[in-house]
Amino acid sequence: MSPHKRIRLGMVGGGKNAFIGAVHRIASRIDDQYDLVAGALSSTPETALASGRELGLAADRNYPDFETMAKKEAARADGIEAVAIVTPNHVHFAPAKAFLEKNVHVICDKPLTSTLADARALRDVVRRSKAEFLLTHNYTGYPLMRQARALVASGALGAIRVVQAEYPQEWLAQPLENSGQKQAGWRTDPARSGMGGCVGDIGTHAYNLLRFVTGLKTEALCADLHTFVAGRQVDDNVHILLRFEGGARGMLWASQVAPGHENGLMLRIYGEKAGLEWVQAEPNKMWFCPLGQPRQLLTRGGAITTAGEGAAGAGVRIPAGHPEGYLEAFATLYTEFAQVIRTGKGGEMLPDVDDGVEGLEFIVAAVVSSRNNSQWTVLGEA
Amino acid sequence: MSPHKRIRLGMVGGGKNAFIGAVHRIASRIDDQYDLVAGALSSTPETALASGRELGLAADRNYPDFETMAKKEAARADGIEAVAIVTPNHVHFAPAKAFLEKNVHVICDKPLTSTLADARALRDVVRRSKAEFLLTHNYTGYPLMRQARALVASGALGAIRVVQAEYPQEWLAQPLENSGQKQAGWRTDPARSGMGGCVGDIGTHAYNLLRFVTGLKTEALCADLHTFVAGRQVDDNVHILLRFEGGARGMLWASQVAPGHENGLMLRIYGEKAGLEWVQAEPNKMWFCPLGQPRQLLTRGGAITTAGEGAAGAGVRIPAGHPEGYLEAFATLYTEFAQVIRTGKGGEMLPDVDDGVEGLEFIVAAVVSSRNNSQWTVLGEA
Amino acid sequence: MSPHKRIRLGMVGGGKNAFIGAVHRIASRIDDQYDLVAGALSSTPETALASGRELGLAADRNYPDFETMAKKEAARADGIEAVAIVTPNHVHFAPAKAFLEKNVHVICDKPLTSTLADARALRDVVRRSKAEFLLTHNYTGYPLMRQARALVASGALGAIRVVQAEYPQEWLAQPLENSGQKQAGWRTDPARSGMGGCVGDIGTHAYNLLRFVTGLKTEALCADLHTFVAGRQVDDNVHILLRFEGGARGMLWASQVAPGHENGLMLRIYGEKAGLEWVQAEPNKMWFCPLGQPRQLLTRGGAITTAGEGAAGAGVRIPAGHPEGYLEAFATLYTEFAQVIRTGKGGEMLPDVDDGVEGLEFIVAAVVSSRNNSQWTVLGEA
Amino acid sequence: MSPHKRIRLGMVGGGKNAFIGAVHRIASRIDDQYDLVAGALSSTPETALASGRELGLAADRNYPDFETMAKKEAARADGIEAVAIVTPNHVHFAPAKAFLEKNVHVICDKPLTSTLADARALRDVVRRSKAEFLLTHNYTGYPLMRQARALVASGALGAIRVVQAEYPQEWLAQPLENSGQKQAGWRTDPARSGMGGCVGDIGTHAYNLLRFVTGLKTEALCADLHTFVAGRQVDDNVHILLRFEGGARGMLWASQVAPGHENGLMLRIYGEKAGLEWVQAEPNKMWFCPLGQPRQLLTRGGAITTAGEGAAGAGVRIPAGHPEGYLEAFATLYTEFAQVIRTGKGGEMLPDVDDGVEGLEFIVAAVVSSRNNSQWTVLGEA
Repeated sequence: MSPHKRIRLGMVGGGKNAFIGAVHRIASRIDDQYDLVAGALSSTPETALASGRELGLAADRNYPDFETMAKKEAARADGIEAVAIVTPNHVHFAPAKAFLEKNVHVICDKPLTSTLADARALRDVVRRSKAEFLLTHNYTGYPLMRQARALVASGALGAIRVVQAEYPQEWLAQPLENSGQKQAGWRTDPARSGMGGCVGDIGTHAYNLLRFVTGLKTEALCADLHTFVAGRQVDDNVHILLRFEGGARGMLWASQVAPGHENGLMLRIYGEKAGLEWVQAEPNKMWFCPLGQPRQLLTRGGAITTAGEGAAGAGVRIPAGHPEGYLEAFATLYTEFAQVIRTGKGGEMLPDVDDGVEGLEFIVAAVVSSRNNSQWTVLGEA
Repeated sequence: MSPHKRIRLGMVGGGKNAFIGAVHRIASRIDDQYDLVAGALSSTPETALASGRELGLAADRNYPDFETMAKKEAARADGIEAVAIVTPNHVHFAPAKAFLEKNVHVICDKPLTSTLADARALRDVVRRSKAEFLLTHNYTGYPLMRQARALVASGALGAIRVVQAEYPQEWLAQPLENSGQKQAGWRTDPARSGMGGCVGDIGTHAYNLLRFVTGLKTEALCADLHTFVAGRQVDDNVHILLRFEGGARGMLWASQVAPGHENGLMLRIYGEKAGLEWVQAEPNKMWFCPLGQPRQLLTRGGAITTAGEGAAGAGVRIPAGHPEGYLEAFATLYTEFAQVIRTGKGGEMLPDVDDGVEGLEFIVAAVVSSRNNSQWTVLGEA
Repeated sequence: MSPHKRIRLGMVGGGKNAFIGAVHRIASRIDDQYDLVAGALSSTPETALASGRELGLAADRNYPDFETMAKKEAARADGIEAVAIVTPNHVHFAPAKAFLEKNVHVICDKPLTSTLADARALRDVVRRSKAEFLLTHNYTGYPLMRQARALVASGALGAIRVVQAEYPQEWLAQPLENSGQKQAGWRTDPARSGMGGCVGDIGTHAYNLLRFVTGLKTEALCADLHTFVAGRQVDDNVHILLRFEGGARGMLWASQVAPGHENGLMLRIYGEKAGLEWVQAEPNKMWFCPLGQPRQLLTRGGAITTAGEGAAGAGVRIPAGHPEGYLEAFATLYTEFAQVIRTGKGGEMLPDVDDGVEGLEFIVAAVVSSRNNSQWTVLGEA
Repeated sequence: MSPHKRIRLGMVGGGKNAFIGAVHRIASRIDDQYDLVAGALSSTPETALASGRELGLAADRNYPDFETMAKKEAARADGIEAVAIVTPNHVHFAPAKAFLEKNVHVICDKPLTSTLADARALRDVVRRSKAEFLLTHNYTGYPLMRQARALVASGALGAIRVVQAEYPQEWLAQPLENSGQKQAGWRTDPARSGMGGCVGDIGTHAYNLLRFVTGLKTEALCADLHTFVAGRQVDDNVHILLRFEGGARGMLWASQVAPGHENGLMLRIYGEKAGLEWVQAEPNKMWFCPLGQPRQLLTRGGAITTAGEGAAGAGVRIPAGHPEGYLEAFATLYTEFAQVIRTGKGGEMLPDVDDGVEGLEFIVAAVVSSRNNSQWTVLGEA
């Protein structure tokens, strides 16, 4: 790595009791590419300011709200170059737009927005802006998911036939949102989360990942969304059939009511010549299954990877056998985005605003199909 | 076990190069409840007789065809008491009917028949006969599947919400049927297999097993069946959504084109209070996942089972830690059926002709739904 | 398989409440090579006779003791051809000698005897007898252990460097022998078990298996045996270092006080070019680890085996993916021994009386080394 | 976390092509407790300076050697408060002494030094210094190893009986040191590594971890060290028997010639009431095995941990199900040490100079025992 100056970073959201804000901050530090210098860390001004003091932000860059932050930072010579937006879904659009219009690069948590209309509008904003945009579908940062993508692209699997994606969790098996738990609260509130519950929160992750790895374009989906917990306003279990261009078929299951699962994201891909299987909870290994031969256990940074099977080495910080995890995968997105910011180049593997729009189209199509008795529904047409 | 005389057993099918016939013979011997004394081991008389000689059948009980066997055995004082039918699907109905009408007990491989009409007709034959009927959905004989059923029935999982069943294989990823391989040949020929390919061959196993364990009654299904191998006349990949009475939801995936899978039957069940997960390839262990607590690894014959969690001990021949397998599970069906034959009682856990009819209804509903663009379809109404 | 007459089998021991006798009976039936026609099923005459009645033995071949059985069966034209000895260790020698001297083939449970002197004396008896002798070190019957042996012999691992064998159990973590439990009782009584406890009961299994697979000859061992349960008269935990001819090194751990383990037999072998790892509780899979390449998961009957990697196919009854277990492995020994009995040929992979003597030498060397403060001790010299 | 100023950190070693230096730098950043402001990054002055420029060190704090750095930094008002020493073993002592005598806190990689005499001398230096000392036995930073320690201390396992520790690798199965590979070079050179090869490099990690978790004091060890690769000057395979005060027994295997293993550190502990099993390659899960009950799979941050089973929560940054890895465990040591530096309190779980001396005593005892034909040898007396 050549000598560098760190990128000046601001943050919207991520104050006290937030989960994902802390993740973004660690991710920004791991490869030493960013300095967090400003923030509007909560939608409640007092909380925002208190959170900023805890993090040691300078008083004049610890803002009560993102509008003020956008305005004042844009006016500084040493103003932020990039901003991380880590608020609930319905508060992605406005700050993203505000900063993009100031040509501040935006790192935005997923899903892109809470409505498809907002997503499309934000896409237009991104296209008009000189700034870059990163959507943190973080699972794409796992080295073996990049290895999987390279293996598919190389033809090692042959034409893809079947894709099985799933993301089960147990944490919402009971009405946790009624207990005042903040994370459960906004995720089950359509006004803040959008029309999708489970399908938006984790279904989009599974969907984005299968798209990232296979590159398959979806033709249509057939969904059966269900709410098991009485009184809940959004879906908490998602069953979807998928048809891809070229004839591949898929299934996607996401659930927040599956006892035994913490974050059970799993991706399995079967082609004419080989299969691939990967589980997020053990991200440093992946099965490669050539037809008619013994299964092989690939490891992050292990034999096949370093033997130059492609672009998969990206993001490997330490040798095989010492596990990297979720934070490192997240950091890889930050680090590669830093490179894009500095050079205006690269970032081919980074999720962007188009992936975000597609995520919303996926959510909408799933909800609409389910309402129409699981009718096959084309993404983007609903 | 009290002193016993072995049951005199005949066999239809299962001659040279057959797979499942040998399995039935071993299963019949493991617990010493049967003597194989007669057979019509192939639909080709010469092969039948040669096969019988190899197995050491007495010359006068080694028959060229099942009709002769049914007639002559019925006329003997020491005629067979039971017969195992291990032919391709389209040759289940006629011999089953012939022997049942002679009041010979029938052990029939699955699926019950090659058409739903035959299945229903056979059900009537069974009802009129004094003889008993066993359908060898052998996976129900695994001790931990019985443990699972007992756990569900006991309420340990609470109300079931989600059922995920799957049965992937790789063996038909290429057009093996064109090579003259006998097993592949009849399984991909609608005239012998019936209207379902993968859905009938292994989809029914997964479906039967989820019904056995959960007891949930199916309301409707929504299917997307597909044929990936060019020229194949039946489906080789099956994606099905399920809705059960009471509101539970399910997914079923069966595939014969999934590289990396030999017989990847897996059953996962999630209730309000706990989840269960089991994989056939490692049948001596099962995950029990109480909500909010660590996962527990139950073992066949292990702690919880012997602590009297219910009827699950059935079929455990050796203590925990020494694995039992497929043949023992199969043998358990034979052994329990022997008890039914002797006493006219028991057999509550044995798959019967009603399960067989249900299997055909499942196949037909899946094919019809798929043809109707994945419309929700009620079983038995198609 | 060609037409056959079953071998007439007798049994010594294995009556009510016995464990291993039932295993032997099932093993003898699985491949239909034996008929159990006579028995002296307990050292208590009343129990022997009652047990024989339960099993349906003819009254005149249901004997009160093995001496009577040996004498009377030898006098019958249809007397037994082979006998299975399934008594506690100290009652192996006398019946084995009695039957061998009548030229009845002997199938004997392990360890061979309770003392090394008896073992050596029995070896002489075997050498003088026309009858064949099988020692049921049953784990050698697992198809993948034969595959492992073939892989080592083929040079696929290169020269062996390190062998790690272990066999942990939990069942004697408390003084179960004080509760009247029969299996625990004789195994912890030196008068019946011999000078070794855990080392004889399961340590010999691990040792025999590593010898079977690697073929390495032991140079010396260094042992630390310990008794954790107060009042127990034999060892219940075994730590042994091994040195093999040619320079390979090994470790062997056996324990009966390891919570979490049912029958945790594991064998790991590392050569210059590759490693192998296998766990008995999941016997249908084995890791093959070529240096510098991804691990491969071999399966019983799977790709590499059937691709003709050698003699490993033996004992595979059903295709890959449907698990075989402990009873099938046991049955393979019985079936191959039947072939030896009929033809006087074959049986190269069957454990014999020499393996039995070696097992006793291993036990004695381990106990002696441990008493001598873990001094390196040569097998057979103690 | 309350507002904080970062600790000013220097580094000795860790320049171009170094592995562990980069790990230390990431670890120092993850929780935002340190600023790297000075370095003497190589023993070759040109490499040191070039490496510092790459990392963006200010020119006046980018030193050609550690002596200069110690002197100049001590003279600055804003001089470093702590220094990380990440050189080969034989260059730990001198810089550690130099900085401790300037009262700069020291973070030192393991093993403590290359000789026991140095280790003891350094212990005296630490005792005389006002500065704190951290030895980065990083595996102790894994949350589940802390959970394990808490479980043992709580009595959940009962009295410990058996400890099985192992650390196999494959990377030195061939004479990699002859290829010019830097990491292999110094690790196999007694002049730089010390008298132990594998036993010092990874054996000490396994030993330190078992001591950390169990708290058992070692009575004596019995070792068989071996060198398999021709021409290698240090051991590459380590077999050790252990006896602990109170009667527990243990085994330790470390190997650098075991194909299939990247960093296969595994710790298994069996007590009177329960067992624990953990594998470093999958550090987010651990088996807890209560005697006579099903195994439980504990997860990092999962149910039992958060239910307050003790001090185990430390170091958990993200909720269960999203894996943390090696870098996070490493970071936890850095972060807790920052707290010690700031407050002079805490750090009870941090490895210190006494652990370092013990590590050298372990190495020396192992080598001496092995040379004395595996004689039982007391640590610290050799």
